[in-house]
Amino acid sequence: MLELIAPLVVANTTKIVVLSLDGLGGLPRPETRRSELETARLPNLSALAAESACGLIRHVAPGITPGSGPGHLGLFGYDPIRYQVGRGVLEALGIEFPLSPGDVAARGNFCTVDAKGLITDRRAGRIATEVCVKLTARLRTVRLPGVELFVEPVKEHRFVLVLRGRGRAGGLSGRLSETDPQQLGGPPLAVKPLEPRAKATAQRVNAFVAEARRRLVDSAPANMILLRGFDRLPALPRFPETFRLRPAAIAAYPLYRRLAKLVGMEVLKTGGTFADELATLREHWDAYDFFFLHYKDTDKAGEDGNFDAKVAALERLDGFVPQIRALGPDVLVVTGDHATPSVLAAHGWQPVPVLLWSRYCGADPVTELTERACAAGSLGVFPSHHLMPPVMANALRLTKFGA
Amino acid sequence: MLELIAPLVVANTTKIVVLSLDGLGGLPRPETRRSELETARLPNLSALAAESACGLIRHVAPGITPGSGPGHLGLFGYDPIRYQVGRGVLEALGIEFPLSPGDVAARGNFCTVDAKGLITDRRAGRIATEVCVKLTARLRTVRLPGVELFVEPVKEHRFVLVLRGRGRAGGLSGRLSETDPQQLGGPPLAVKPLEPRAKATAQRVNAFVAEARRRLVDSAPANMILLRGFDRLPALPRFPETFRLRPAAIAAYPLYRRLAKLVGMEVLKTGGTFADELATLREHWDAYDFFFLHYKDTDKAGEDGNFDAKVAALERLDGFVPQIRALGPDVLVVTGDHATPSVLAAHGWQPVPVLLWSRYCGADPVTELTERACAAGSLGVFPSHHLMPPVMANALRLTKFGA
Repeated sequence: MLELIAPLVVANTTKIVVLSLDGLGGLPRPETRRSELETARLPNLSALAAESACGLIRHVAPGITPGSGPGHLGLFGYDPIRYQVGRGVLEALGIEFPLSPGDVAARGNFCTVDAKGLITDRRAGRIATEVCVKLTARLRTVRLPGVELFVEPVKEHRFVLVLRGRGRAGGLSGRLSETDPQQLGGPPLAVKPLEPRAKATAQRVNAFVAEARRRLVDSAPANMILLRGFDRLPALPRFPETFRLRPAAIAAYPLYRRLAKLVGMEVLKTGGTFADELATLREHWDAYDFFFLHYKDTDKAGEDGNFDAKVAALERLDGFVPQIRALGPDVLVVTGDHATPSVLAAHGWQPVPVLLWSRYCGADPVTELTERACAAGSLGVFPSHHLMPPVMANALRLTKFGA
Repeated sequence: MLELIAPLVVANTTKIVVLSLDGLGGLPRPETRRSELETARLPNLSALAAESACGLIRHVAPGITPGSGPGHLGLFGYDPIRYQVGRGVLEALGIEFPLSPGDVAARGNFCTVDAKGLITDRRAGRIATEVCVKLTARLRTVRLPGVELFVEPVKEHRFVLVLRGRGRAGGLSGRLSETDPQQLGGPPLAVKPLEPRAKATAQRVNAFVAEARRRLVDSAPANMILLRGFDRLPALPRFPETFRLRPAAIAAYPLYRRLAKLVGMEVLKTGGTFADELATLREHWDAYDFFFLHYKDTDKAGEDGNFDAKVAALERLDGFVPQIRALGPDVLVVTGDHATPSVLAAHGWQPVPVLLWSRYCGADPVTELTERACAAGSLGVFPSHHLMPPVMANALRLTKFGA
C-alpha cells in the first residue's frame, strides 16, 4: 500500500487530524445489550458521524487482538504484519530509552532459580520497582568486549537490556532465541543465533547472562534473569517523506509518543490531560499539517473492566470535539488503535469504529459512531493500513493512478 | 493466516461447535423473490442470529463455486486455494479408501471407444454400478512392477485408481496429465509427467491403461477407461496441533468424515440422521473441545432443485438448534460449505450466510440468518479461511499480536 501511494502523493496545504481514542471499540453489556459507545451520550460525535463516511477497522486480521504497537502503526499507514516491532524495542520505547539504529533491545524479567539453577518463579514474586532499580544497577556493572550495555528498570520485575555495538565492530543482530522457557522446573535457555551473523551477538548475550547470575546470586527471590523479544529498530519508511506531510504527535503517554517518533513524526511537548493536548494542538496548528492526537482514558477504563468509566471517558471526549472542529481541519478522523471491551477487561479482537470527515467524504447512512452502526458505513470493514490512503485522498494530496 | 495465528494460540477449556449446513446459501424463487432461508420459518436460528455476529462467507473467491472439499477445508481454517486436494484424492476419500501418504489417486471413468480406439461415449452410457463392480474386478488383475494397484468401484461408470509404491522404490508423483480429452472422436491421451520425477509414474500409468484396454476389449459399452485428477494426499498442517484443540467430527456422509480426518480431526461414529448426530454430540461433549457437525439435507434438496424440500430441511434443522445450545457451547457457528440454490439445482458461487455466537461476539443489526440480512452483519463478507481466527478469539484461545 505504501509503495502504491508514495508515488501518487502531491503537495497541498490541507490539514489532517487523526484522533485515536485508545481501546475505542467495545462490547454490549449483557444487561442492556448496548456497548459503551451505544450507552454514552455523544451528541458531538454523532453529529460528526452523520456528516462523515464511517466504517470498521480490523487492525491486524480477523480474530487477532492487536497490541498498541501494531494498532498504531496500522493507523499511521504501515501494514502491522509486515512491519513488526519486537517486544524488546517496544519496551525500550515505552520507557523512552533513546534507541539507535543497530541497537538490540530485549525485555528482561528478574526470576527466581533454586540451588540447581532451575526456575521456580518466572517473575521473582513481582518484586517492588525499587528492588528492580537496585538490581539493574548491579547488572550495569557488567562489562563485555565490543558492546556497550544498558540495563534500565521498567516496573516490578521487568527491565530492558540494550546492546550497542562499539565503533566499527557494530553489526549486532536481533535474530536471537529467548532464554525464557515459559515454564517452571527447567533452567533458563541459552540464547541461540537465528541467523548466521547473529552468532557473535548470541555469545555476548550468553556472557551477559552468566555475569548477571554471578551478580545476583545473593539477591533471592530475584536471583536470575530471563530475556525475551530481542529485536532491533525496524526499518520503517519515514512518514514525513512517504506522505509529504509535516506530522506532529500529541500524546500524554510515552509509548504513543515513541511509536510516533519511530515513524519520524515530530513529538510535541504536552501536559497530562486531553485539555492540555488540545492546547498544544491549537498552539502548533499553523506549523504542521498532520496531527496525531491520542486519548488514553477510554483504554484505561476498558482495561479496568469499568463499563461506566469507559462511558464517562467517551462523554468527556465528546465534549472536546467542537474545539477540534473549530480549528477547521480539512480531514478529521476519529477511531482507535484496538478494542478494549469493558466486559473483557483487556484488548479485544473486535473491529473498531471509524469516521472520516472531509468536504469530499461522501454520505452514508451512519449517524452514530458505534460498532453496530458503523458496520453499515461506506468505508466498509477494512485493515488499518488502508486508512491513510483515503485520508490523503480526502485531503486532496493524492494524484490519479494511471493516465 | 495459519502462520499468523499459530504462535498466538493459547490453551483454554472453552468449547466450540461449528455447524455446517451443506449447501446453505440459496437464491430467491422468482415468484416470491424470497430465498429458501427467507421463506423458511426459523424461529431458533433467527433468535440466535439476533444475539450473534453475522456475515457472509465467500468460500474461494468472487464468482467461484466451491466443491465440498475446498468448501470445508476453508471452514477448518485452510486457504482452499493454497491447500488444494486433487479430485482423485477426494474421490478416494469419498469411498473411505485408506490412502497412505505417497499414494497417487485418480478418478476413473469407464468409457466407450470404437474399433479405431476413438471415444464415442465418455461415460459408457452410465453403466449400472454392478457392472462397474465386475469390471473393476477385472482391472484388479493387472500387475505392474514396483507398484501396488487398487481399483475401487464408486458409482455407475466411476471408479478410483490408486497406485502405491512398493518398498523403497516408493516415490510416486501425482503431477501427471489426464487421459480424458474431454471430447468425443479422439483417442484417450497418453499420460505425461508434469515434473521430471513423475516420469516413472507416468510410464506405470500408461502401462496400466494399455493392460486395461486388453482386459476390457469385449466389455462394450464399457470397453476402455479414462483417468483424471491424479494427486497425492496434500501436506496439510494438522488441525489439533495448529489450533491446540481436541477436535471431533460428526457427519453421516463419508466425504465429510474423510475431509475432517484429512486435517487430523477425530471422526466419531454416528448414525444416519441428524438426531443421531446430536446424540453423538451429547455423548462425547466432555471428551472434545471442538465439534464439526455436518447437516446434509439442505444440499440434497438444493441439488434436486427442490425449493420446498430445502425450506423443509431448514425448518427441520431449526428445530434441533435448542438442543445444541442446551449443551452450553462457548462459541457456536452456523454456516455452510457453499451455496446450493434450488433454482440452480447445483452448487453455486453465492456467498453463504454465517452467524458466530459467543459471549464476546458483539452486536450487529442482523436478526435473521439470510443472504440479504447477513450482508449487513459485523463480520462483513470474508473468505472462509478467515473464520477460524475469530472463532478462536471468541473462545479466548488467542493471545495478543505485538505488545
